[in-house]
Amino acid sequence: MKSRAAVAWGPGEPLSIEEIDVQGPKAGEVLVRIVATGVCHTDAYTLSGADPEGIFPSVLGHEGAGVVEEVGEGVTSLKPGDHVIPLYTAECGKCKFCLSGKTNLCGAVRATQGQGLMPDGTSRFSLNGKTIHHYMGTSTFSEYTVLPEISLAKIQVDAPLEKVCLLGCGITTGIGAVRNTAKVEPGSTVAVFGLGGIGLSVIQGARMVGASRIIAIDINEDKFEMARQFGATDCVNPKDFSDPIQQVIVDMTDGGVDYSFECIGNVQVMRSALECCHKGWGESIIIGVAGAGEEISTRPFQLVTGRVWKGSAFGGVKGRSELPGYVEDYMNGKIEIDPFVTHTMGLEDINKAFDLMHEGKSIRSVILFDQ
Amino acid sequence: MKSRAAVAWGPGEPLSIEEIDVQGPKAGEVLVRIVATGVCHTDAYTLSGADPEGIFPSVLGHEGAGVVEEVGEGVTSLKPGDHVIPLYTAECGKCKFCLSGKTNLCGAVRATQGQGLMPDGTSRFSLNGKTIHHYMGTSTFSEYTVLPEISLAKIQVDAPLEKVCLLGCGITTGIGAVRNTAKVEPGSTVAVFGLGGIGLSVIQGARMVGASRIIAIDINEDKFEMARQFGATDCVNPKDFSDPIQQVIVDMTDGGVDYSFECIGNVQVMRSALECCHKGWGESIIIGVAGAGEEISTRPFQLVTGRVWKGSAFGGVKGRSELPGYVEDYMNGKIEIDPFVTHTMGLEDINKAFDLMHEGKSIRSVILFDQ
Repeated sequence: MKSRAAVAWGPGEPLSIEEIDVQGPKAGEVLVRIVATGVCHTDAYTLSGADPEGIFPSVLGHEGAGVVEEVGEGVTSLKPGDHVIPLYTAECGKCKFCLSGKTNLCGAVRATQGQGLMPDGTSRFSLNGKTIHHYMGTSTFSEYTVLPEISLAKIQVDAPLEKVCLLGCGITTGIGAVRNTAKVEPGSTVAVFGLGGIGLSVIQGARMVGASRIIAIDINEDKFEMARQFGATDCVNPKDFSDPIQQVIVDMTDGGVDYSFECIGNVQVMRSALECCHKGWGESIIIGVAGAGEEISTRPFQLVTGRVWKGSAFGGVKGRSELPGYVEDYMNGKIEIDPFVTHTMGLEDINKAFDLMHEGKSIRSVILFDQ
Repeated sequence: MKSRAAVAWGPGEPLSIEEIDVQGPKAGEVLVRIVATGVCHTDAYTLSGADPEGIFPSVLGHEGAGVVEEVGEGVTSLKPGDHVIPLYTAECGKCKFCLSGKTNLCGAVRATQGQGLMPDGTSRFSLNGKTIHHYMGTSTFSEYTVLPEISLAKIQVDAPLEKVCLLGCGITTGIGAVRNTAKVEPGSTVAVFGLGGIGLSVIQGARMVGASRIIAIDINEDKFEMARQFGATDCVNPKDFSDPIQQVIVDMTDGGVDYSFECIGNVQVMRSALECCHKGWGESIIIGVAGAGEEISTRPFQLVTGRVWKGSAFGGVKGRSELPGYVEDYMNGKIEIDPFVTHTMGLEDINKAFDLMHEGKSIRSVILFDQ
């Protein structure tokens, strides 16, 4: 079948709107009509060429929501008409990762997903006979996309897809990092470095679990108003201080925070985030994705005196089991999504979404396929 | 009063056996007659001059056991004749660290302890009127030493002090890192880097909690026999492989170990220890003390994909509450100490104990004051 899609032909090039060919679902696969998709920094990172694992040509996009159109042989948990959120972190329920009870990093389709292919080692996308690769197993910048059954979370049909698409990445990542990875307790002090979509979601998550103090940190003070709306109690611009930011936070909190979150991808900030944690128990969670080959460092004394350094991918959330609950929380008013959607546009304007992001003017632009 | 003591007059110099002056205990303090003390790498580190916080002249030693001789005003939990183990990590029970329930790093006497002084800012040691400093709040290389009440764990009187003195540091540190810091579960796979007293204690601890596989790693194969006696299932010499040791361990364990422990103080090994952990859940615990200014580093991807980097000091053990239980475990045969004591000698031979350690010939030498 034909599908409108934004194709990334090469690193650094604008996306090109094409009518690509999409093959139907094979065994264990599902054809999904994407209704809406967010545009996330990770898409921009790959498009820029900085991602050493980036593959071109490909259909980017990993923060979508849609409707099942057709299921392949053996698919039992989904049927046409079901509403779904694509998962770049699958959940097979059978691999040692899923069975461990300790992680959401399912290993079932990881190898082929990293190669931009479906689990059988081929692509469902092409144009004029030329193969176009999948991306993160999701490729939500195509109106029709094919995913493994285990890479789709079924959600309630009354949830607005143009909003809950953002639960496919950023918002869930931030809230999950608070709830699943850090397990922040009520009354905790929290520092959040970087106030993009992830950082604001961490703030939202910290407020949800009852953190008593939430310190929002960014060099762009335009972000502070929204940070406060989501629950930040203090907003700090590192440029206002001559001391290193970790020292500023330690001084503000009588010894450091209980939990910190790095939501930028800057290895120097990752160090600051660790070192602003309280001796004895402070935990720092890395969420941001650093540039290729970049390394974090600190003195081991930081850890020997009780700080803990962790990371989080998709907020430690198991997509098929837990994401429907996030959608329910949105529908019940427990999770806010709407303020994140600062712009909407049709697929043909998708390059504008990237521009807005790079200019720091958007939190999230949502692409609506029927607009 | 007079006391025989091994005095460290300056960095790099051999210890000098002197008859020093020891003042009686002030309020909240306790005079202890040390019966036995281990000689630990940390003593050697400070004596070498590499420790930037080392203070001279001082009485080193922090792995001792003894008998209460006299108590100062206000001391209620100890009386003359009680058997005690000195604690370089006090437990006041009142500071925010003690009350947190998350750490053993009591803050009560930390500042003055780091300055080589008692909590009132003075020393109880001198020779010919010249002040000699305390060390780690314990100074067990003096037959008579003075400690804060909160820096002494009271133990059962029938425990042999020439053995349980080693619970004052190394053995407890290793076992505690397994039980308190890592919380290793039965059936886990464990890698232990460095097979000195701490590493062997980690192995012992891992066996105690039911680890299914314990991989012992050292470049000195002479250590392997004892590692196996304590429970190591595999012994690996990194020099036997061209691949980095982390890759060797990952290959041996189908993806990495559940827990790893660095027991050397080498920042490169700390990285290997982290990176040999299993994606999704592997935790690495730093126990070794690195050189001044040295830093650990890794790619943040290691953490984002689920590995956790931690550290442990005194095994996370709260000395006054938990150490008596370690002594009981020794008396009941649950904790082995005797094989660690490879040499015993009188105080006058203490420099030989350092030589044996540097030559890798001893696990622990125990100094017996009445020998």
